[in-house]
Amino acid sequence: MSKKSDIALIGLAVMGQNLILNMNDHGFIVTAYNRTTEKVDEFLKNAAKGTNVVGAYSLQEMVNTLKKPRRVMMLVKAGKAVDSFIEQLIPLLEKGDIIIDGGNSEYNDTTRRTKELEEKEILFVGSGVSGGEDGARYGPSLMPGGNPKAWPFIKDIFQSISAKINGEPCCDWVGENGAGHFVKMVHNGIEYGDMQLICEAYHLMKSCLQLSNEEMSKVFQEWNKGELDSFLIEITKDILKFKDTDGKYLVEKIRDAAGQKGTGKWTAISALDYGVPVTLIGESVFSRCLSALLCERQKASKQLNGPCDPVHIVDKKKLLEELRQALYASKIISYAQGFMLMREAAKIYGWNLNYGGIALMWRGGCIIRSVFLGDIKIAFEKNPQLTNLLLDPFFKNAIHNCQSAWRNVVATSALAGIPMPAFSTALAFYDGYRSARLPANLLQAQRDYFGAHTYELLDEPGKFIHTNWTGHGGNVSAATYQV
Amino acid sequence: MSKKSDIALIGLAVMGQNLILNMNDHGFIVTAYNRTTEKVDEFLKNAAKGTNVVGAYSLQEMVNTLKKPRRVMMLVKAGKAVDSFIEQLIPLLEKGDIIIDGGNSEYNDTTRRTKELEEKEILFVGSGVSGGEDGARYGPSLMPGGNPKAWPFIKDIFQSISAKINGEPCCDWVGENGAGHFVKMVHNGIEYGDMQLICEAYHLMKSCLQLSNEEMSKVFQEWNKGELDSFLIEITKDILKFKDTDGKYLVEKIRDAAGQKGTGKWTAISALDYGVPVTLIGESVFSRCLSALLCERQKASKQLNGPCDPVHIVDKKKLLEELRQALYASKIISYAQGFMLMREAAKIYGWNLNYGGIALMWRGGCIIRSVFLGDIKIAFEKNPQLTNLLLDPFFKNAIHNCQSAWRNVVATSALAGIPMPAFSTALAFYDGYRSARLPANLLQAQRDYFGAHTYELLDEPGKFIHTNWTGHGGNVSAATYQV
Repeated sequence: MSKKSDIALIGLAVMGQNLILNMNDHGFIVTAYNRTTEKVDEFLKNAAKGTNVVGAYSLQEMVNTLKKPRRVMMLVKAGKAVDSFIEQLIPLLEKGDIIIDGGNSEYNDTTRRTKELEEKEILFVGSGVSGGEDGARYGPSLMPGGNPKAWPFIKDIFQSISAKINGEPCCDWVGENGAGHFVKMVHNGIEYGDMQLICEAYHLMKSCLQLSNEEMSKVFQEWNKGELDSFLIEITKDILKFKDTDGKYLVEKIRDAAGQKGTGKWTAISALDYGVPVTLIGESVFSRCLSALLCERQKASKQLNGPCDPVHIVDKKKLLEELRQALYASKIISYAQGFMLMREAAKIYGWNLNYGGIALMWRGGCIIRSVFLGDIKIAFEKNPQLTNLLLDPFFKNAIHNCQSAWRNVVATSALAGIPMPAFSTALAFYDGYRSARLPANLLQAQRDYFGAHTYELLDEPGKFIHTNWTGHGGNVSAATYQV
Repeated sequence: MSKKSDIALIGLAVMGQNLILNMNDHGFIVTAYNRTTEKVDEFLKNAAKGTNVVGAYSLQEMVNTLKKPRRVMMLVKAGKAVDSFIEQLIPLLEKGDIIIDGGNSEYNDTTRRTKELEEKEILFVGSGVSGGEDGARYGPSLMPGGNPKAWPFIKDIFQSISAKINGEPCCDWVGENGAGHFVKMVHNGIEYGDMQLICEAYHLMKSCLQLSNEEMSKVFQEWNKGELDSFLIEITKDILKFKDTDGKYLVEKIRDAAGQKGTGKWTAISALDYGVPVTLIGESVFSRCLSALLCERQKASKQLNGPCDPVHIVDKKKLLEELRQALYASKIISYAQGFMLMREAAKIYGWNLNYGGIALMWRGGCIIRSVFLGDIKIAFEKNPQLTNLLLDPFFKNAIHNCQSAWRNVVATSALAGIPMPAFSTALAFYDGYRSARLPANLLQAQRDYFGAHTYELLDEPGKFIHTNWTGHGGNVSAATYQV
């Protein structure tokens, strides 16, 4: 009998195939399985030709090829398919064997599955996998969480195949239960935010500054040399100047209606559920919703007016530099909000998240990879107890330097009629977060006025007071009581 | 035996007591019940003294006092208590009897309950009740939905006790299943938005214009005479000038940390779930979250800088008028978004919502009551098929008139460092909604670049295309396929 396999992988779509080839490159023997078994043959005959990849045509056969403890990784559609494979695998596996879900599963599902399988002494891992096809093939960002007992048995494979930054793998153990998928969800939410910010910058350049695609591409090329150096800025540079076969710019022919579902939306809903003001991702999701109302917008555009006198931009170069700074500042806010959300979830679920480690996992391999994430890693390394990214000296300084440009850009867009909801909400968040006093005192008074909901005084927190606001003669008839 | 009661009411907290007294005033005989029966005695001896209200000390006794079909209304805490009372009531009721839930229940719960009780041929109604204590006592806004067979049997009582505007009751049948509670939820979300807008206006007046409380109160008093005439503006006028016993303004002593949970959050989550850009309510919920981080903000305020040179406001009076117009325009956006959400939910759930009727229900009795809602009623009466409030001639004209002021206010707040997220998101939404072209084409190109998610061309909607963006020499190597 031939050598046993190190790991099996279920699901031979592009991501699955590429992960297998990546593992093979790193010296692991992988058994490949797919429900439609023709895909196994096809894979072995083509992409996996000449590799050590082993094919399997049933789950039983697949399991038989594996070393113990057995490691089975799924890359199948999130939802029912995951539960269905788990159910089929259970009778074929033994205590101590490991099932890994590498799909975009909802983190609460991962928590449930980890617990259910723990009762059967099977170790479950839910791992975020980011980086698209290329990442899967040459080094993805991997965010594994679930049953910590599994980590020693998968660490070697995972850290071997992941992206590396200065020799450090973009993969580490995230935390128990759904922690890995939660962090992947926030990653995707932040990805929504990064993309929205770039889109708004493009909108301003195009509509307000009337730059050509070549010019815009050059701007992004320049930006990619500095603080904004990142995968998304880089591909934007490529996309903007990409010409269709007729010589025209392809991006300008694309329908401006974006889909939104899944992880971006989940991030915003989690933020609402846990009461964390993750406003930039929220606006990014809503912006996709608004883009999707294409027919309604086209109709409305003929009826609803905008500024009659467009803002005259005297110095394009100056505004472009301001835009760069505004994008950088808004991006800092978005990541600060994302880390706030992870911190709150960690509190709720008892996860001991390593924020510097998370920044490193995102530093390479994934869609939001950037130089910027290296700075975040440093911030959390210097101070693992950092309550907010904005209070780190490096980022505080960065925001202070950018702030006047940022304000000008937001004001300009408001006056010029260019929608920049992500830039604006980022600035409003910054101004709210740095406010020792917000107007919620009036809101609390309103709630007490019409609903006797009570309020607290600044001087006496914890004491809930109701006032008879309609009492005559200006007297306070306060019935003081604890709720 | 004495005369039978028209309706029974379970739950003698303030809202319940006041609804009973209101029903009594309109000639209905009401049986009052409370789980802690001392409350029944206390109610009969005090607030209900001299009325026709009947007390009951058990559910059986309560049911025995009722005419058939029996009508039992609950005003108890949303959640388990509602299910528990329903369970206890079922064996005591007959086919065709009616149970009404007047609490702030989640609309999906109401749908479930309506269906479960329909199987037992008991008619369930979930009704929004708004207006606080005063509304309950002298005329609330009532939004009943559920089993439509119940409506003929409760219509008289409901429309008698509800608020009236020009003789028309602020109560009508909303729709099947959870429709009533859904509409109430949106009402509450809009209430969050209205309050947030007022708070932001107050913040600008106080911090940027440095107005005194007397001056601010006068501004709101003036505003209450015009387009903004509403309950919330009116009470703000009262609150701002309300003096504590020591002669100082009470509102300024109140802790600026607002609670958020329940209906405002639910509205934002529904908006995300159904893909409707209800951005203003979203920002309002997040603003409450941010306000709640009081200690963090106080700490951050000492480290994070704002504008060094405050914007010098030459003409306070002009800015105040601009602020009024900006508030009005933002409010139009918020209501337009709320009605967009109801329209989408109606599509999903098959509700035949009467939007003019909903505006009338909110016109009086409830917290968001306003002259403005009369205008919305007229808009939907003139055109029940109106797809968006912004396209109604009256509101379109209003927005066009206010727009330059609105832009100045948003720009001023950005430059002055006053957080006005609700005003800004409203403007960004307006500019997005009136854009025939949004930058989501770039976003779609990005998604196709890194994830082969495909895109559509403007010319060929429905055809999903993938491009090999990294192809050399500028050629499109497009694998065109249908997904």
